[in-house]
Amino acid sequence: MDRSTLRRKADVLRTLHGNGRLLVLPNVWDPIGARIVEAAGLPAVATASAAISASLGYVDGEAISRGTMLEIVGRIARSVEVPVSADMERGYGESLAELRETIRLLVAAGAVGLNIEDSLGEEESLRGVDEQCQRIATVREAAAAEGVPLVINARADAFLTALPAAAEERLEETVRRAEAYARAGADCIYPIGPGDRATVSLLRARIRHPINILAHARAMSLAEMQEIGIDRVSFGPGLFRSGLQRFADSVARLAALGPYDAVANDLMPRDEVQRYLMGGPETGP
Amino acid sequence: MDRSTLRRKADVLRTLHGNGRLLVLPNVWDPIGARIVEAAGLPAVATASAAISASLGYVDGEAISRGTMLEIVGRIARSVEVPVSADMERGYGESLAELRETIRLLVAAGAVGLNIEDSLGEEESLRGVDEQCQRIATVREAAAAEGVPLVINARADAFLTALPAAAEERLEETVRRAEAYARAGADCIYPIGPGDRATVSLLRARIRHPINILAHARAMSLAEMQEIGIDRVSFGPGLFRSGLQRFADSVARLAALGPYDAVANDLMPRDEVQRYLMGGPETGP
Repeated sequence: MDRSTLRRKADVLRTLHGNGRLLVLPNVWDPIGARIVEAAGLPAVATASAAISASLGYVDGEAISRGTMLEIVGRIARSVEVPVSADMERGYGESLAELRETIRLLVAAGAVGLNIEDSLGEEESLRGVDEQCQRIATVREAAAAEGVPLVINARADAFLTALPAAAEERLEETVRRAEAYARAGADCIYPIGPGDRATVSLLRARIRHPINILAHARAMSLAEMQEIGIDRVSFGPGLFRSGLQRFADSVARLAALGPYDAVANDLMPRDEVQRYLMGGPETGP
Repeated sequence: MDRSTLRRKADVLRTLHGNGRLLVLPNVWDPIGARIVEAAGLPAVATASAAISASLGYVDGEAISRGTMLEIVGRIARSVEVPVSADMERGYGESLAELRETIRLLVAAGAVGLNIEDSLGEEESLRGVDEQCQRIATVREAAAAEGVPLVINARADAFLTALPAAAEERLEETVRRAEAYARAGADCIYPIGPGDRATVSLLRARIRHPINILAHARAMSLAEMQEIGIDRVSFGPGLFRSGLQRFADSVARLAALGPYDAVANDLMPRDEVQRYLMGGPETGP
């Protein structure tokens, strides 16, 4: 995709934050999912790294290679006209040089935004705040060098980690990091985990920048999120894992020579599938 | 995968036909789907080309490139221990030389069986029977040259085509082709379309070779298929399109800031997803 198109898309994605409307991002893992999201009238598409990894057989947490992840991101970005934000886990590279290369490849793939995490894999400890700020600043610089003002959604993972232990400390740590990350170049802060009205309202009151909330089983409704001024909501691998449960249930029934109503009725009709596929830009290669 | 492993897997897949038990193949489009099928105790995995194509943004009917299709087939084949049969549409190559190359690449990808169609794309006319026999014989020879006795599931698409018009003629055409295809090297005949007990029973009575039936909304139960001696049942893109309808319904609700129960509850738990991913052979690259 040419750089002026990507710049325009990045600008569009940026204006979808902080405008008083909740940006709803039902995270996808394949091009047809992106087409369906676009056709539903949603103004942007976001990927779920855990879903892309799992669908290809990799456990979560950068077990998938950067090249494979970006191949899928590229397929998704080429399949829709709306801006695409890619979940890039920890950035697929520990050194700043590797991180810069990730950004170069991300822009080449056609994404105009990204999530980047501040937690460190399985042990779930947090990266130091200065180091994470340096990484966010590196993303910002590398994006500028590519001529595309990527929208940076900075994950603030304090609520996921074992430490700090107390909820109040986690909140303070998140607020502190939110400010630091925004100064380093983040456009949106993603304190993944809390979804209850009390905690999210506190985060909203204390963070002056756009906020992304994860929707999950114990989280407030989308209408409430919009009401209290949340900018963006995403679902992680929720839609993927919902489909996967249905798939596994169906397979278990079929293996027992049971009824197959679920895979014979309530299907998306073939013509409708084709319409989604014909509706967008050329897919390739 | 080394050739002796592939030979063994092809032999296993072949013995799953004609043994009095219905081989149930809930067609998959990604590695985790294959893992779930294997974990359910099913002895083989089959792909759905229409699902693989659609998930990557391509309309059905060889719009996807051979290379991209085989990349996914390879990922699936590497993700399970059980034999994998790949839906290869019309063979991704009109000339016999191209068809031979498809078979070489298919074996390299690790598949040990394939579906090959005798209809010609959108117009849905049938290839001449002699030409299709030559193609099946070419698949058999090319597989032998690779040292792997691929299990050939020969689609007999007369029931899909506009001509011959009468149901009785379609049946006769299918029976005639079944014999010819088996002589040319097919292991199993796949008369896609009919699922009612009357027609399937007639096909069973008239065809002396293993038969694959497509399960669909108006087809008989799996138990009935087993009862009348059907060898193999597959679901085409049914499981995929079932999941897709659920996904599209969820996206429509989310776009309207509606409830998101469906993507927050009844999810496959993260630990269970991880177990499927850890349970199989190494995935790569």
